[in-house]
Amino acid sequence: MEFKHVENPQIQFASPESIAEFQNARLREEVAYLYARSPYYGGLMRSLGITPGDIRMVEDLAKLPTTAKEDLQRRSGEFVCVPEQEIRDYVTTSGTLGSPVVFALSDSDLERLAYNEWLSFSTAGCVAGQRLQLMTTLDRRFMAGLAYYMGARRLGMASVRVGNGIPALQWDTIARIHPEVCMVVPSFLVPLVEYAQHQGIDYAHSSLRKAICIGEGIRTPDLSLSRLGERIQTLWPTLELYSTYASTEMQSSFTECECQCGGHAQPDLIICEFLDEQGNPVPEGEPGELTITTLGVRAMPLLRFRTGDVCYHFRQPCSCGRNTLRVSPLLGRKGQMIKYKGTTMYPPALYDILDAVPGVNDYLVEVFENSLGTDEISIRVVTDSPSEAFAKELKDLFRAKVRVAPRIVFSPQHEVQALKNPTGSRKVVKFIDHRVR
Amino acid sequence: MEFKHVENPQIQFASPESIAEFQNARLREEVAYLYARSPYYGGLMRSLGITPGDIRMVEDLAKLPTTAKEDLQRRSGEFVCVPEQEIRDYVTTSGTLGSPVVFALSDSDLERLAYNEWLSFSTAGCVAGQRLQLMTTLDRRFMAGLAYYMGARRLGMASVRVGNGIPALQWDTIARIHPEVCMVVPSFLVPLVEYAQHQGIDYAHSSLRKAICIGEGIRTPDLSLSRLGERIQTLWPTLELYSTYASTEMQSSFTECECQCGGHAQPDLIICEFLDEQGNPVPEGEPGELTITTLGVRAMPLLRFRTGDVCYHFRQPCSCGRNTLRVSPLLGRKGQMIKYKGTTMYPPALYDILDAVPGVNDYLVEVFENSLGTDEISIRVVTDSPSEAFAKELKDLFRAKVRVAPRIVFSPQHEVQALKNPTGSRKVVKFIDHRVR
Repeated sequence: MEFKHVENPQIQFASPESIAEFQNARLREEVAYLYARSPYYGGLMRSLGITPGDIRMVEDLAKLPTTAKEDLQRRSGEFVCVPEQEIRDYVTTSGTLGSPVVFALSDSDLERLAYNEWLSFSTAGCVAGQRLQLMTTLDRRFMAGLAYYMGARRLGMASVRVGNGIPALQWDTIARIHPEVCMVVPSFLVPLVEYAQHQGIDYAHSSLRKAICIGEGIRTPDLSLSRLGERIQTLWPTLELYSTYASTEMQSSFTECECQCGGHAQPDLIICEFLDEQGNPVPEGEPGELTITTLGVRAMPLLRFRTGDVCYHFRQPCSCGRNTLRVSPLLGRKGQMIKYKGTTMYPPALYDILDAVPGVNDYLVEVFENSLGTDEISIRVVTDSPSEAFAKELKDLFRAKVRVAPRIVFSPQHEVQALKNPTGSRKVVKFIDHRVR
Repeated sequence: MEFKHVENPQIQFASPESIAEFQNARLREEVAYLYARSPYYGGLMRSLGITPGDIRMVEDLAKLPTTAKEDLQRRSGEFVCVPEQEIRDYVTTSGTLGSPVVFALSDSDLERLAYNEWLSFSTAGCVAGQRLQLMTTLDRRFMAGLAYYMGARRLGMASVRVGNGIPALQWDTIARIHPEVCMVVPSFLVPLVEYAQHQGIDYAHSSLRKAICIGEGIRTPDLSLSRLGERIQTLWPTLELYSTYASTEMQSSFTECECQCGGHAQPDLIICEFLDEQGNPVPEGEPGELTITTLGVRAMPLLRFRTGDVCYHFRQPCSCGRNTLRVSPLLGRKGQMIKYKGTTMYPPALYDILDAVPGVNDYLVEVFENSLGTDEISIRVVTDSPSEAFAKELKDLFRAKVRVAPRIVFSPQHEVQALKNPTGSRKVVKFIDHRVR
């Protein structure tokens, strides 16, 4: 059996029953491939006495254990299913939790990645002939930037690869190339607008009409705009904001359609489960850890990989015509859950509050375990006007919004910046976890 | 007639007569395409009363005027031969001389670019299964980084896209991925080795065996190692250095084979002429301006484009088995030629001298026109020990090596750095021309 990814762009519009049937059939092929080719999963199935015939449908996945990030970190090489000479690209995960993992992609995996982003751009309403400005990088061992590039090409868009940062170069590019769409980490839109205002650039009447946002939420888990999203929309009301969510391990994206009610999963590329702490499925309306099984990945496919990302999921058909599963913006990373006097929460809920306070120039959230074994939250705040009164105002805000009373510590900008950008980290750190596991 | 690039990887090993015949046939197709599709060249030919039938062979190109960089800058849109919706990638030239030009590529142009770099990597002795570390960027609107990536993929190599700078990340990548080959701006190899020495990394026994160098010469026009090349080879004797030379306008590369006697042209991708100031062909052994006609470019093909790059050319067959035209390392940019008391020279000859002086930490070359209408050279030198004696030593060195006596000005590092990195420039500036044209 020659193994390849199966492209079925119409499946997202099929009935939920057809989607389920399609996924079950694909899953059977996937399990057979892993049994034959994956040292890790083949070994796992054999040690459990499970044969491919035991996994006939998505519900049967529960017979197999989940895969953790630590399994990937410790036994990375055992996940590779193709000979080394078939590898065409090496990337690494960002290592948000622990050491980065090397991921290898075959030629077919790169094609699958292009297909995935073609679907993703289509879901966000992009069409052939449009111009895309890539404000994210294709370097630094990232998978994403290359995926966007290949997907846009396949859709028939024209890309201009600028990379991240440098507002002057971004505006020079907008002026020269007239892109309608950009791929961007949304918080960068703030300095981008500020630069335009400062230089007298009429950004509201520029060619840019749509921003596809990656890496940070512009919506809260209830699908309303986050403070960051609101801030961007206030600064630039004519810019349409779309979210996309993805990770190196998943090799596929969840992208909002024009209804903006969660990111659509691609049924021909991924199977999703949403699990509680005990590994049992959670119903809609309850937070669960997204756990994925890749379909059609050839070099490093994953089976029941626990992403660590906690979200809600929605199964009712979307008014865009797609009948695919959707996921909410992330509540947070599972390992970063904060338990505070009986309630649980994730750091993004705290960021969202801080993003809305005018006097807060910058911040960093830290969590400690106190002597009673419960969590304590400490927030470093950078402000031009530190005062007891401001600290109390902030505390009251947290009490009102999320019923926690964090410690507020005013810190100088350089100190917070140094903590947010540790040597060797590819992403900005907004949360430091001092708890002992 | 459907126009496409013609791939003929074996043509480089054919006889010089077969290569000439092949190129004449390709040129006829190219001229027909330009006549039909290029607003600029079609209009030019019509205004001169020239029809495609008048251009039967490379020698007939002399019937047409050359194209200057200024033509591209002023009438950029008229060079585009495909409808806008066929564009897949926008890049810009670096604007070394004047304002950058936007270049548009079609899907077919991207395939041609991949083919070109496949040939280029093959010429430099790379083979399928090897791993390539990209130490140059795929961002910043560059054509090159993407071309390398696509070419390596097509050859069957595995790439890891790191981007430029950050020695720590480069060494982390070498340790994780074990690349045999890197693409690099050669002067970056110096801080790369220095970082390794400082960190105790046994770089000489790392996986890296070959560096393909772009953007700066590692050889002088007589094909011996330049001071920079020598310095790298002294630091890292086991690293094989190969040069490649290319530009956005050419959309093809000239790469050294293992004989390292000039960069091989790809006969199925480009036609080269070498012209003097009056536009007449120069013989081998005389410096000429490389003037190119692209073959198979679909979106923005160029006919007799004067690159501004001055070099020697070699036509005798190479002992590697290729019978293709080769070009020497660049003497310099035509516009930067310095006329000094009857001799002419280019700034790289001055850089090469400065690169070899131990006390010179950094430098910048400036040229002025004096009241007699001849050129004066002034060199800003950054050193830890400025003295009259050192200035005299430098002057004597220049007198001995290139028979010029420049003015030596000792300048602080920050001043030279600011001049070398002007706002908006994508490349480091080592030469400032104050002459009036």
